[in-house]
Amino acid sequence: MNDDVATAERAVSLATIEQARTRLGSQIVHTPTNKSETLSLRTGSELWLKFENQQFTASFKDRGALNKLLCLSETERRQGVIAASAGNHAQAVAHHSRRLGIAATIVMPVSAPFAKVSNTLALGADVVQFGQTVDASNEHALELARARGLVRVHPFDDPDVIAGQGTLALELLADAPNLDAVVVPVGGGGLISGVATVCKALAPNLKVIGVQTELFRRAADSFRQRREALIDSDPSGDSEASAAKVPPSLGPFGADTLADGIAVKSPSPLTQSLIDALVDDMLTVDESSLEHACNDLLEFEKTVAEGAGAAALAAVIQHPDYFAGRRVACIVSGGNMDPRVMADTILRGLARSGRLARLRVDVRDLPGSLAEITRVVAETGANIVDVRHERVFLATPAMRTRLSLELATRNDEHAEAVARALRSAGHAVLRILG
Amino acid sequence: MNDDVATAERAVSLATIEQARTRLGSQIVHTPTNKSETLSLRTGSELWLKFENQQFTASFKDRGALNKLLCLSETERRQGVIAASAGNHAQAVAHHSRRLGIAATIVMPVSAPFAKVSNTLALGADVVQFGQTVDASNEHALELARARGLVRVHPFDDPDVIAGQGTLALELLADAPNLDAVVVPVGGGGLISGVATVCKALAPNLKVIGVQTELFRRAADSFRQRREALIDSDPSGDSEASAAKVPPSLGPFGADTLADGIAVKSPSPLTQSLIDALVDDMLTVDESSLEHACNDLLEFEKTVAEGAGAAALAAVIQHPDYFAGRRVACIVSGGNMDPRVMADTILRGLARSGRLARLRVDVRDLPGSLAEITRVVAETGANIVDVRHERVFLATPAMRTRLSLELATRNDEHAEAVARALRSAGHAVLRILG
Repeated sequence: MNDDVATAERAVSLATIEQARTRLGSQIVHTPTNKSETLSLRTGSELWLKFENQQFTASFKDRGALNKLLCLSETERRQGVIAASAGNHAQAVAHHSRRLGIAATIVMPVSAPFAKVSNTLALGADVVQFGQTVDASNEHALELARARGLVRVHPFDDPDVIAGQGTLALELLADAPNLDAVVVPVGGGGLISGVATVCKALAPNLKVIGVQTELFRRAADSFRQRREALIDSDPSGDSEASAAKVPPSLGPFGADTLADGIAVKSPSPLTQSLIDALVDDMLTVDESSLEHACNDLLEFEKTVAEGAGAAALAAVIQHPDYFAGRRVACIVSGGNMDPRVMADTILRGLARSGRLARLRVDVRDLPGSLAEITRVVAETGANIVDVRHERVFLATPAMRTRLSLELATRNDEHAEAVARALRSAGHAVLRILG
Repeated sequence: MNDDVATAERAVSLATIEQARTRLGSQIVHTPTNKSETLSLRTGSELWLKFENQQFTASFKDRGALNKLLCLSETERRQGVIAASAGNHAQAVAHHSRRLGIAATIVMPVSAPFAKVSNTLALGADVVQFGQTVDASNEHALELARARGLVRVHPFDDPDVIAGQGTLALELLADAPNLDAVVVPVGGGGLISGVATVCKALAPNLKVIGVQTELFRRAADSFRQRREALIDSDPSGDSEASAAKVPPSLGPFGADTLADGIAVKSPSPLTQSLIDALVDDMLTVDESSLEHACNDLLEFEKTVAEGAGAAALAAVIQHPDYFAGRRVACIVSGGNMDPRVMADTILRGLARSGRLARLRVDVRDLPGSLAEITRVVAETGANIVDVRHERVFLATPAMRTRLSLELATRNDEHAEAVARALRSAGHAVLRILG
């Protein structure tokens, strides 16, 4: 570890986090922490949720951004601040800068979603769109900071930002005593660095578990490599967690993830060293668990979590044995999900659980064929949502047509029962999955 | 008013509601009441929300059902209870009956959604499906109650149920002092009867406003007729509210409403007499305001409200002048929205606000046509989500085809700009609205 990192690491402590709490005062929402009866039953853990999506800009980023702004000198405040972000950090910096009368510039990639750009503009910031990636925006922000004398508000590589994020853990420990584990989404590692600092000081037996997506897992991999170098292979097991070591196949979609809020290439030397020193374990989750967790939070908790905000719950869903019977708190770190993505995620969830089903049925292209098919479907109690005919691109004879039926069904079993009923009536049926 | 009603009306009082609170104790969630900064800005009122969708079965129905169950004698408990409901009341009765070890039978219409039947079964109740409507289920429940000696738990026509619902107002007045108005969704009128009883006793200057949908407005119409019979026409205006007097056109879809939770044909004599005596005004809302309110709660509050649960906010959205500048609390009465309906409502909201747009473009059916169209669209910064070709059912020459483009756009202006750009490039464009 180089000297700068060591100095910065010493600059993060329970004391700096308690000072941050005093500094933030009532300018930050003390978000609720509640036990979820339904998700406890479903996961087999005693599951608590901290609803950080109820923060003003709907993520924990308010805490770190505001603490940083409040630590600036009068001169720095007059100079203004700059941040590179396509997401929650941008909104947090913009919102609190405006409240405090500080000029804020936000650099976003050219490809940033409309909604994020317009939200940030609506919060009063000056938005500069530059580069194809957040890394390119970041470079540009550094240049602008130098050229214009602006103070940089880094999303995670800053002891003041980390101290702000850590205040979340002070609330958590007060509101949910005697936890066995707290599960924290990890992108750049700012949140977990603050949370782990508090937990190791105040509740040393509480396990702090980080979660990354399989597609952005640098912090988890570094943690694991270092752990393995330090300790001889541990025969005590932990097979679920070690499954996370398998390198992911990126597949045809590259590294797009529902959890864009933690799609960070790499932590900084500072946050990685805090993670290595203070965190108990790092897990990874796949896209299917992230979608599952978002949908469970909507359906059972009536709350909107973005992909990254659902990552902690996704870890409990994907690694149930790891958490079984424990008293576990999941940080619902943010709720800024694009509405179109939300609608798609809900529908995909229904399809996955068999509450929407698609069947392909080959039928004779004659009057009465559709009436016969729909009668059989109606008798099973399923509701036809959409019907399409395919006639041209088929390897079947011209006298036949293919129906694509979309059905609202009760569950997987019911969807299979509809397919069976159609087969019993003499039709060739294929159920399309996912 | 007949004697029975007068007796029942006297049976609802601040005292019975305070007793209900003591009886319910911690078996009911004291749900949060928070000011919404964003919705205050958007509506021009100081807007507070009571998140009753955070109740265990995700609606206020827990309060009334549990109070009724706790008022039963030991003999009645052993006999078991019966309720007719296709919705939140069913889940509330089932959940608390199981907790208390009371056998519960729920009668639901044959047409009740799968999810509601399976949720009620999962909560341990015996479900009987009977009749095409809740009214038919209700008749059947009465018969079964007589035949089997079961105690009926009515969703609203019962002083014990009303007293339970009223406990919500005790929390509200404690958590949000000095309100000017509280806005309450009205189906059968149980909730508003309890709320108004508390408010008129403890905060007589606080206006209690009921909300119904235009499609189910019997309580609002009765209230208004009685008010007009009592008072000479008031020249002071209130034009927004009186707009609600225009009889609705049911249109081709009959009386289906997003707010199925308040789609009740009529209040009971008891609840109507309490409404007439205690409520200050009744407003109605249309389907578009209900969808708008559901989407605003998702997008800005990160919370899931069902249609009825969003009705109070819908009233503030649809009648902004009526509430302008006032300190207003909206009861978010429930959060049990069907996921498929939620996905549709989100997408319809995007279409309405111009964040999804559909354009029909007539083009020559030649290689390169689509490339040319998509190039023009790309230059405007809009993202193509779906493309379809229509060739057959067109009144255009066979050499032409029609493209249907679905686009993700920034807002209405942006959608119009894309249409203009295509027209400037020489194409015939029609924007399809709603």
